[in-house]
Amino acid sequence: MRKDTSCSHLVQRPHRLPEAPTFALANFFFMSWTDSSVVVVGTVAFDSIKTPFGERARIVGGAGTYIGWSASRLGVGTGLVSVIGEDFQQSELDLMSQAGMALEGIDRPVGGKSFFWAGSYHMDMNGRDTLETELNVLADFNPEIPAAWRGAKYLMLGNIDPNLQASVLDQMTERPELVVLDTMNFWMDIAMEPLKAVIARVDVLTINDEEARQLSGERSLIKAARAILAMGPRYLVIKKGEHGALLFHEEGGKLQYFFCPALPLEDVVDPTGAGDTFAGGFIAHVARTGSTDFETLKQGIVVGSALASFTCEAFGTEGIRAVTREALDARIAEFRRMMDWNGAGVEA
Amino acid sequence: MRKDTSCSHLVQRPHRLPEAPTFALANFFFMSWTDSSVVVVGTVAFDSIKTPFGERARIVGGAGTYIGWSASRLGVGTGLVSVIGEDFQQSELDLMSQAGMALEGIDRPVGGKSFFWAGSYHMDMNGRDTLETELNVLADFNPEIPAAWRGAKYLMLGNIDPNLQASVLDQMTERPELVVLDTMNFWMDIAMEPLKAVIARVDVLTINDEEARQLSGERSLIKAARAILAMGPRYLVIKKGEHGALLFHEEGGKLQYFFCPALPLEDVVDPTGAGDTFAGGFIAHVARTGSTDFETLKQGIVVGSALASFTCEAFGTEGIRAVTREALDARIAEFRRMMDWNGAGVEA
Repeated sequence: MRKDTSCSHLVQRPHRLPEAPTFALANFFFMSWTDSSVVVVGTVAFDSIKTPFGERARIVGGAGTYIGWSASRLGVGTGLVSVIGEDFQQSELDLMSQAGMALEGIDRPVGGKSFFWAGSYHMDMNGRDTLETELNVLADFNPEIPAAWRGAKYLMLGNIDPNLQASVLDQMTERPELVVLDTMNFWMDIAMEPLKAVIARVDVLTINDEEARQLSGERSLIKAARAILAMGPRYLVIKKGEHGALLFHEEGGKLQYFFCPALPLEDVVDPTGAGDTFAGGFIAHVARTGSTDFETLKQGIVVGSALASFTCEAFGTEGIRAVTREALDARIAEFRRMMDWNGAGVEA
Repeated sequence: MRKDTSCSHLVQRPHRLPEAPTFALANFFFMSWTDSSVVVVGTVAFDSIKTPFGERARIVGGAGTYIGWSASRLGVGTGLVSVIGEDFQQSELDLMSQAGMALEGIDRPVGGKSFFWAGSYHMDMNGRDTLETELNVLADFNPEIPAAWRGAKYLMLGNIDPNLQASVLDQMTERPELVVLDTMNFWMDIAMEPLKAVIARVDVLTINDEEARQLSGERSLIKAARAILAMGPRYLVIKKGEHGALLFHEEGGKLQYFFCPALPLEDVVDPTGAGDTFAGGFIAHVARTGSTDFETLKQGIVVGSALASFTCEAFGTEGIRAVTREALDARIAEFRRMMDWNGAGVEA
């Protein structure tokens, strides 16, 4: 669809395809844009993925897609701001819309081709090689937030050029209650100053441990966290993949932190999108509770980690799409058990 | 001292050196071999260590040393079974004895030189290179348990030849209540069958994640844990260094697991001995509580992790030696905070 910033597009259209897997989505049907929806800026794209468990060609991927699907599992609607090509299937857009993603912020330029990434995971799953990247429509991506979304309370800035992330912030008519920014070493290498400028304007920064070290120049994660929080954000999330996630926060001059492990899985089939799934669950948990305090953000880390575990268990978005409330609750209970210990009497 | 298996050596001798740092050890003075002491088989040796924070030449190290110091911080006595050279300082032995380590199981052959290891850590501390290894007296190490220790309830088998670990088990007159075995990939490469034979006879196996994969042939830690628990041990501890530790246990056919993160530190000055410190604290916690159930072992993982964090903060055994009860309690409280979240209302 063509981008249009008039309000008429904000009404949820009834994409009821008879072939849609409605059974799994029963709880989440037909949410439309609401006051607690999350604006998500991120890619909607195609991936070709090879892992020791098999391969898939040109399946639906992209950070925005994973974030949107993840939020939908918590019953939280999103407004996706992205760009796709004419090759992107309408049937996929219909499923996304049914799951609660508003798509009026997705541009589809005439004759354009969708962003495409092909990658291959190493046998041990601890690394991956990029085999191919076609920017296509992403090369000219200039995110424009539909007018009706510019007062959104929750904003997720996916991993794109920090100048574009800043331009999105500039478009908001009110400062959102929580802005989460994801980025990566690539932008630190080529655009450190614009990146630092936008980091100073957000509430939560999500990066991995090596990126935290690069951004801060500190080897110790404690020192890195202090330095990064001094750059502006109230919270820092350090994503460590199979080793879990750390949430840092400073209160009264004292550094607070919370650690959430990753769930050990029977099989990690395809970790693509796990970080985005995590981020989507994290911000959606904040949106559904309406609180941005440390305790709520800790919960968000656990909920996001639980959702990410489903993404790892299947190729592409298959895992996260199929998550029911019951499956998610059972998995959160597994996190609770895994982290639970009785400290009574342990100290002297 | 020469090894002697008569009981006369089991009386704690009063090594009261005026220059000893008695202030820090006030709580732990002059424990002698008791019913709850832990027999520890492991090296007592010299290390030369280089890290980005500096270097130290020929400082006291060895798995047995770290395990003994760590247990002493919990007020738990140990009986060390090891071998040293004539070059090993009496003043060090005196300090160890004062801290609660019974040394009658340490052989000191005439003219022998102590085991020596030299290593250098990479800038990022995630790897290290061995620069030099001199086996010296360790080449002919044949651990002999003093007669009075052969009914010990708690036995820690440090990382040595699995055939020697088995011979120690053979010397015990009663099956201990808990036997913990540490090993490494080296023995999997050259002595897999003897290793599997001794693993089948112990209660707890401690290895790292790559070793768990090598031992089981499974990439997934969940599958690896199931396979290893099927080999005999009741518990499996997977040590992941800066990424924490996992405790696995099977109950009623269902795999249970507990995850304890590593404490993020201001500075990791020297991680040498952290794994041994962890193991020492773990088994000493079991010994001081007298219980070997899953809940107690979870606590042991936290206590061991807390003690290991002190070892990382200074060179060699400096960090663990200086730990007071107050410092340890404060650190355990930090683990509690780091792992604490309020799950109320998180599930649907």
